[in-house]
Amino acid sequence: MQIAILGGTGDIGEGLALRWGYDTDYDVVIGSRDAERARDAASSYESKLAEHGRDVPIEGAKNPEAATGADVAVAAVPAYHLTDTIESVAETLDDAVLVSPAVGMQRDEEGFHYNPPSAGSVTALAADAAPDGIPVVGAFHNLAAGRLADLDDDLGIDTLLVGDDAEAKATVAEVADGIEGLRALDAGGLVNAPEIEGITPLLINVAQHNDGLHDLGVRFE
Amino acid sequence: MQIAILGGTGDIGEGLALRWGYDTDYDVVIGSRDAERARDAASSYESKLAEHGRDVPIEGAKNPEAATGADVAVAAVPAYHLTDTIESVAETLDDAVLVSPAVGMQRDEEGFHYNPPSAGSVTALAADAAPDGIPVVGAFHNLAAGRLADLDDDLGIDTLLVGDDAEAKATVAEVADGIEGLRALDAGGLVNAPEIEGITPLLINVAQHNDGLHDLGVRFE
Repeated sequence: MQIAILGGTGDIGEGLALRWGYDTDYDVVIGSRDAERARDAASSYESKLAEHGRDVPIEGAKNPEAATGADVAVAAVPAYHLTDTIESVAETLDDAVLVSPAVGMQRDEEGFHYNPPSAGSVTALAADAAPDGIPVVGAFHNLAAGRLADLDDDLGIDTLLVGDDAEAKATVAEVADGIEGLRALDAGGLVNAPEIEGITPLLINVAQHNDGLHDLGVRFE
Repeated sequence: MQIAILGGTGDIGEGLALRWGYDTDYDVVIGSRDAERARDAASSYESKLAEHGRDVPIEGAKNPEAATGADVAVAAVPAYHLTDTIESVAETLDDAVLVSPAVGMQRDEEGFHYNPPSAGSVTALAADAAPDGIPVVGAFHNLAAGRLADLDDDLGIDTLLVGDDAEAKATVAEVADGIEGLRALDAGGLVNAPEIEGITPLLINVAQHNDGLHDLGVRFE
């Protein structure tokens, strides 16, 4: 399994790269708009994995090169970079499943609120931007990046998957379940993305209002 | 603590009545538009509690009488009956905290979707309908009624509270935490209700798409 993490120099990209590096034998490639930043990040993730006893090579490259040959490409960028990022890899995605973990939030004095784009959800925005024939799966929306990057944390949380292509969704379920302590659950079609994306601002609000809770995840039981 | 469950003949009302009857010494009054239906439901809940070894008197009355003297009044009615129900108890609520557990959903072939009213959330709709001086707290939105009513189920789930009156929210946290296995978490002000209400259709979608999962609740961890 070859996984490209586009925008993989950011915090959610780091968390996913470290988890897949630690828990699986997938080939992980970090993408960025800047090749040197990608290589620096990949090298830093290799060092962190080495500190945890894992000698895992992680490559870094510009996003289009990172996407080349990928089975799964995660668009680990903020919502406002999503369309640009997907367009930049349109020629190289080839047979990949494109994964969208971004959400849209706004903040005011009362807290964080879900702020979907006119497409209905950020996941739908990714689907609109994806090249013909590239299936999009929404996943990893509600993961606290810092906790994901902390390999000493056992997680014990869920991630919800939405998508209209069953085979693509099964592939993403496989790579999500490849992360120890993370359980992938199917939440249906892409149209069901808004309620999932809306959980992310909620997790921040709950953490802010309850002592002792931080970097929250969600578990369905 | 005196708790009125307005529309308490419905399934969420039954679950709350049984839990408070079993786990606490609160005085629970079942309200309905029809006094006889309220008394029949109250009697049926008494029987179920007796089967579980609890000899607990539960009263039934028309909604306005049920609300009289209540410390907490739960509007356990569908969203489309919420305004009518609150208006019917406007003269008798007196010092109560009004609790709104309803959500707005629509269903299509893809599943269930959150469908908030123009007020922004069903909880906000309750606040708009509430008499001056009666604080509204959103709570119990994401509880599966059947599971709540099954006293053999240990729950182990959370309920999120939103409200703009800290004292009222503390009262609702107390009665929510009075239910064994249920943990009340503060999610901030009323404006944060939509993301909570949106979890309810999501829970239904997740249960429909994953074998072995049903009557789901949510846990933040």
